[in-house]
Amino acid sequence: MVELPYLLKKESICHRKDGLLYIGDRRVFPFEKRFEPCSTVEQVAAALKAMVTQGGGPLQVAFTTLRFISEKMRLGRLPYSYEELRRSVALLIGARPTNTTMRRAMLALLEELAPLFADGAGPDEFALKVDELVDEQELYYDETYHQMGRIGSTLIEDGDVILTTCFAEHTFLLSLAYAREEGKALSVLVNETRPYLQGSRLTYPCLQEMGIQAHLITDGMGAHYLAEGKITKYMTASDLVCMDGSVVNKVGTLSNAVACNYYKVPYYAFSISPDPTKLSSSEIVMEERSAEEVLHCLSLPTTLEGKALYPSFDIIEPSLVHGIVTPKGVLAPSSLARSFS
Amino acid sequence: MVELPYLLKKESICHRKDGLLYIGDRRVFPFEKRFEPCSTVEQVAAALKAMVTQGGGPLQVAFTTLRFISEKMRLGRLPYSYEELRRSVALLIGARPTNTTMRRAMLALLEELAPLFADGAGPDEFALKVDELVDEQELYYDETYHQMGRIGSTLIEDGDVILTTCFAEHTFLLSLAYAREEGKALSVLVNETRPYLQGSRLTYPCLQEMGIQAHLITDGMGAHYLAEGKITKYMTASDLVCMDGSVVNKVGTLSNAVACNYYKVPYYAFSISPDPTKLSSSEIVMEERSAEEVLHCLSLPTTLEGKALYPSFDIIEPSLVHGIVTPKGVLAPSSLARSFS
Repeated sequence: MVELPYLLKKESICHRKDGLLYIGDRRVFPFEKRFEPCSTVEQVAAALKAMVTQGGGPLQVAFTTLRFISEKMRLGRLPYSYEELRRSVALLIGARPTNTTMRRAMLALLEELAPLFADGAGPDEFALKVDELVDEQELYYDETYHQMGRIGSTLIEDGDVILTTCFAEHTFLLSLAYAREEGKALSVLVNETRPYLQGSRLTYPCLQEMGIQAHLITDGMGAHYLAEGKITKYMTASDLVCMDGSVVNKVGTLSNAVACNYYKVPYYAFSISPDPTKLSSSEIVMEERSAEEVLHCLSLPTTLEGKALYPSFDIIEPSLVHGIVTPKGVLAPSSLARSFS
Repeated sequence: MVELPYLLKKESICHRKDGLLYIGDRRVFPFEKRFEPCSTVEQVAAALKAMVTQGGGPLQVAFTTLRFISEKMRLGRLPYSYEELRRSVALLIGARPTNTTMRRAMLALLEELAPLFADGAGPDEFALKVDELVDEQELYYDETYHQMGRIGSTLIEDGDVILTTCFAEHTFLLSLAYAREEGKALSVLVNETRPYLQGSRLTYPCLQEMGIQAHLITDGMGAHYLAEGKITKYMTASDLVCMDGSVVNKVGTLSNAVACNYYKVPYYAFSISPDPTKLSSSEIVMEERSAEEVLHCLSLPTTLEGKALYPSFDIIEPSLVHGIVTPKGVLAPSSLARSFS
């Protein structure tokens, strides 16, 4: 049985208890297993903004928040109205403007729920419908993650040493788990992913928990091991894939993708689907994050004082991408538009 | 007047006072300007081993240690003998096996000093000779650094944005200073250089002190700015250059050199001289440093516990090197052997 590690279990990402919603705090993981309690949607949105969870986390938080809202409406603790629902969804979407998966999922749910208010359904019926729709969505993502994991596992060969950057979550980890279930030996080199250290704080402990052989390296060491011929594949998540096959992912990804190209090692990115609203990377506005994060590591200053730059994401041009792992199979960047039109 | 920053002044690297030798502690710089006091050569060697100073630091420490020894011998606090001198030099050399510049300089001095013992010179005469020879050596390096700085400055064009990795010390910083003196506008992007943070702790404060515009970035961000066309040159020191033009430098250097090659930005390395004993990189035995450094940042753990890898150096093949800045000019890797034979 292929199972997800603690950090990716629904309960650890987000759960409800005694009328509160608790978000697993990835900022302190793995040093602490702390949860951020929220009693309002405003607090949930603030937690998402403050990066309490990231990556695929906000999607699961949004699903749980929808159940949380409908429960509050049913108990009369929140006005039961479409306006209230729409306002809550807008708060969640606004908290993480680059998380287009969460945005699209929430807008689709909003559209499905709107008729209930028009048809005069009561809060009980509404709550049941929310549960039904969110159950469906959660099942869809679960199945898709496992499907992508099985597809990803077919890329992995016995003896592979796989380089990864940042935290590629469900799809990458399930690929490794399925590959191992098929009896393939594998090991992983994990970039620490400065400044936020997702590699050392999230990816590495997950691999340890799963019993997969892994070594931590700094972000500058990937090319060294590629040059030595020790890395056979490079696999990352993607924050966004454009219709032309450009991959957008955490800054640091490009550096290794370019080195993979030079040393002839294939680079694969995971994506549930390209973003149909982004034809190419020219439509992407780069989000700059706070320079303070570059000037600090685990809250300690790395220099006395200074100026720094923190571009959030890298844009990896299609020619550097060997394949994109999707629910429709491993696709060449050039065939993505045809498969997802 | 082109001047070196605090960290590179002789006094800050190493000085003698009241019979003790003090080594500037680069491990705590810039947070503290602390000196490690040594009363014996054994303590000096232990400090070098413990990375109290690094890069060009050990050479200056070795010069000062030679004066320190001869003073002790003159005062009768250390046996006055060739054996004692040779033992001390061996301790210094052994403390930093990959620092071939320090090794070669010390062995040359030992050879020049040996006849004094054979000729029956006394400790006073010996101390004078040490001062004379070390003065000569220090002057040679001073002049060479400034000469290389002037040569390096000719590579810099008005408006350049220069990427650097680790701490390229005298030659790189003097190149910037001379270029600025010539009225060229320039700015520098500084990799923080994990795990040891030489970029953020040493390079960046030096640039600030010199009034040169600089921004700190993490080690994964170089390719991002190269892709955006914002970087015009890449310049680093070299721990070692082979006769075939292979450059050996702090791990993390290769990643940017490969990206420079892809985005057509020239990479220059500084070297006083290639190592005549190393014809090519195949003769290099890679030094592995403690994995603990990768698992920590500024002494804080970056993950709960784990396995990590820390190869000390990158080997950058000659085809990735645009030019090597030497006292004989900027040479193509392929013409290095001819110029230094």
